[in-house]
Amino acid sequence: MSYFHALSLSTPMLSRTITRSAKRSFSTSTAAINRCIVYAQNGDPTQVLTAVTYPKLPSPSPNTVNLKFLLSPINPADVNTIEGVYPSKPTHTSNLNTSGLGSKNEPVFVGGNEGLAQVIEVGEGVEGLQKDDWVVMDRPQLGTWSTSRNVPSHGIIRLPATGLTEAHGATMTVNPTTAYNMLNGFVELQEGDWVIQNGANSAVGQLVIQIAKERGLNTINFVRSRADMNPLVQHLERLGATKVLTYDDLNDKSLRGQIKEWTGGKDIRLALNCVGGEPTTAMAKLLGQDAHLVSYGAMSKKPLSLPTSLHIFKNLTSHGFWQTNWSKTHSRTEKEGLIAKLAEMMKEDTIKAPEHTIVTIGAQQSDEEATAKIRDLFAEMAEGKFGKKILLKLEDTAT
Amino acid sequence: MSYFHALSLSTPMLSRTITRSAKRSFSTSTAAINRCIVYAQNGDPTQVLTAVTYPKLPSPSPNTVNLKFLLSPINPADVNTIEGVYPSKPTHTSNLNTSGLGSKNEPVFVGGNEGLAQVIEVGEGVEGLQKDDWVVMDRPQLGTWSTSRNVPSHGIIRLPATGLTEAHGATMTVNPTTAYNMLNGFVELQEGDWVIQNGANSAVGQLVIQIAKERGLNTINFVRSRADMNPLVQHLERLGATKVLTYDDLNDKSLRGQIKEWTGGKDIRLALNCVGGEPTTAMAKLLGQDAHLVSYGAMSKKPLSLPTSLHIFKNLTSHGFWQTNWSKTHSRTEKEGLIAKLAEMMKEDTIKAPEHTIVTIGAQQSDEEATAKIRDLFAEMAEGKFGKKILLKLEDTAT
Repeated sequence: MSYFHALSLSTPMLSRTITRSAKRSFSTSTAAINRCIVYAQNGDPTQVLTAVTYPKLPSPSPNTVNLKFLLSPINPADVNTIEGVYPSKPTHTSNLNTSGLGSKNEPVFVGGNEGLAQVIEVGEGVEGLQKDDWVVMDRPQLGTWSTSRNVPSHGIIRLPATGLTEAHGATMTVNPTTAYNMLNGFVELQEGDWVIQNGANSAVGQLVIQIAKERGLNTINFVRSRADMNPLVQHLERLGATKVLTYDDLNDKSLRGQIKEWTGGKDIRLALNCVGGEPTTAMAKLLGQDAHLVSYGAMSKKPLSLPTSLHIFKNLTSHGFWQTNWSKTHSRTEKEGLIAKLAEMMKEDTIKAPEHTIVTIGAQQSDEEATAKIRDLFAEMAEGKFGKKILLKLEDTAT
Repeated sequence: MSYFHALSLSTPMLSRTITRSAKRSFSTSTAAINRCIVYAQNGDPTQVLTAVTYPKLPSPSPNTVNLKFLLSPINPADVNTIEGVYPSKPTHTSNLNTSGLGSKNEPVFVGGNEGLAQVIEVGEGVEGLQKDDWVVMDRPQLGTWSTSRNVPSHGIIRLPATGLTEAHGATMTVNPTTAYNMLNGFVELQEGDWVIQNGANSAVGQLVIQIAKERGLNTINFVRSRADMNPLVQHLERLGATKVLTYDDLNDKSLRGQIKEWTGGKDIRLALNCVGGEPTTAMAKLLGQDAHLVSYGAMSKKPLSLPTSLHIFKNLTSHGFWQTNWSKTHSRTEKEGLIAKLAEMMKEDTIKAPEHTIVTIGAQQSDEEATAKIRDLFAEMAEGKFGKKILLKLEDTAT
């Protein structure tokens, strides 16, 4: 399919003539080359997600660009967003088709918050972006589970470094930013300082280990205990973990003395928490004077419970961290700087891409087949069948 | 008793000749005019507190001053200090007497952290202080339950305003400083903003109400419910409380709407907590985006339990506040400025002295009688017989 040919078919006049039944027949034609994963209402992803084919995008309006998505993760928060229980809400899309799903009469939410895309066409007035640039999302909920989307140019950030894998680029704006900002935004840490965290084998936890290691920081990493600890301990140590412990170790009275020996008595002033409940209370008690506890998750679904004395007499401060909020409250320059730093670390392999599985929705599949495939995928994820990050690749429907 | 006469009796040579039995006979003589409340070991105040008489202080060494205490509170934290469970520890005193309690062989802790004193003699090199100045303590645990003490001049702050009552001056450095600093140190509040607090009828709570009122801030004040709420509500409203509610009201589903009506939908960004447990969780949920919860007590003895989502998605920050730590980490100028501001508010009656009872240890009472009196007092306090602040007045033993 030539780029020009596809473009010539996407004039407004033509798309206005597309009916719902016509659209379906286009799903394997050269006319409708786009597909995205949408939901009309919030609910269980295995019930509400639907694949929709739509025509080639018109040329971008001023200050917007057309993007082709290369790879887009399915993150845990995406499930909450689809269910309608996540605080960051997508906006309706009603310009995919002239009738049916994604039209004015049947607006939809397009799924996907994070992703790597390539610029395919640049609108008037856009500076600093050109065709074929790789970009990541700077706004939440742009609908990355799509073949192509038109987005405002200030909703994306260009990847400055070359030599990144697609998997690196696709997973850059949620977890690595979170890990980096938590290590930088709360305590001024010097080389040789210690950081403590739980959920250390989570996606963010593994990035904390790697970025801390790069900065010369030591990490004490708590994970759930399991029959054979060795593979996990070795994996985390390979990433750069200084020490790996289990939540059971928190009940061991000798732990405090052990840690004091490791740190040489230096106060630990930063703890990162994605678990909540008792293990977090116990972890907070290991902190020194004027420390900061930063929570970015609550995997145990239990609240954060802290003895008030830690706040009053040890001057502990307890914060939350949400990258979406960080993005809202930081400048374009700060955000570009952060992406540049992370891209550099990825290029140098200081940050490894997460272990992942790429799921491809093939060009030849009908929307019905694609819908079944994506719903099955979410059903399997809900059953915990994937230990790895799922990265979605949607092929153009017209091939 | 003339000042000069007493002074002439306190030469080092004379005091070196005082024996333990001699000291006792001095308790009603003109030679030993000082008394303080001490404890040799930590323990139950009703078991360990002892009154000790000691000779007139020698003239102050360079950079120190001799103080005569006018009035010294017994604060709740004093009990914990005597029990040995408070993080701020007094240092031993061994120069009260040459033998017996308070000597090198039997060092003691002198009780009392807060108090109002008058300068009676100024050592060489001391600037900005002169005889008869009223001063308050800038260092913790200086041993204010004394008739007279020698202290380093940088351990005290001169009261700039005249026209204060002794009760005002005696109760200035613990509770009003805490209330003022919590209202100023965490959120930049504008006139018309709202502050929410629990334990609103605590000493600090009542000061928060008064200082907030002076600053044009509105307060929502939670207290325990009681059979007749009227007297308490009226009392707090007279102090300046905007709204008074009970912890039971926190279970009322209409509360959120009610508060929204009061605030005109404005986010509440500061909550002050001295209770902990469930009512604090419920109070935290009433806060808006980017709010701060500041804890300075845990009267319920239950930990602070917060849903992690408040931290992550509403960017709630949870802090502790301890005036002792504030003092350690702020400059002399800042501390003098704070005391000046509070003294001005007291002078203008913007801050009322707390309701109090003055307990006098009379000059004519023997140490044994004084010991019995102070132990009885602590026993009654432990039984909750005093709703009011106890202010201790120790008379010179030589009258």
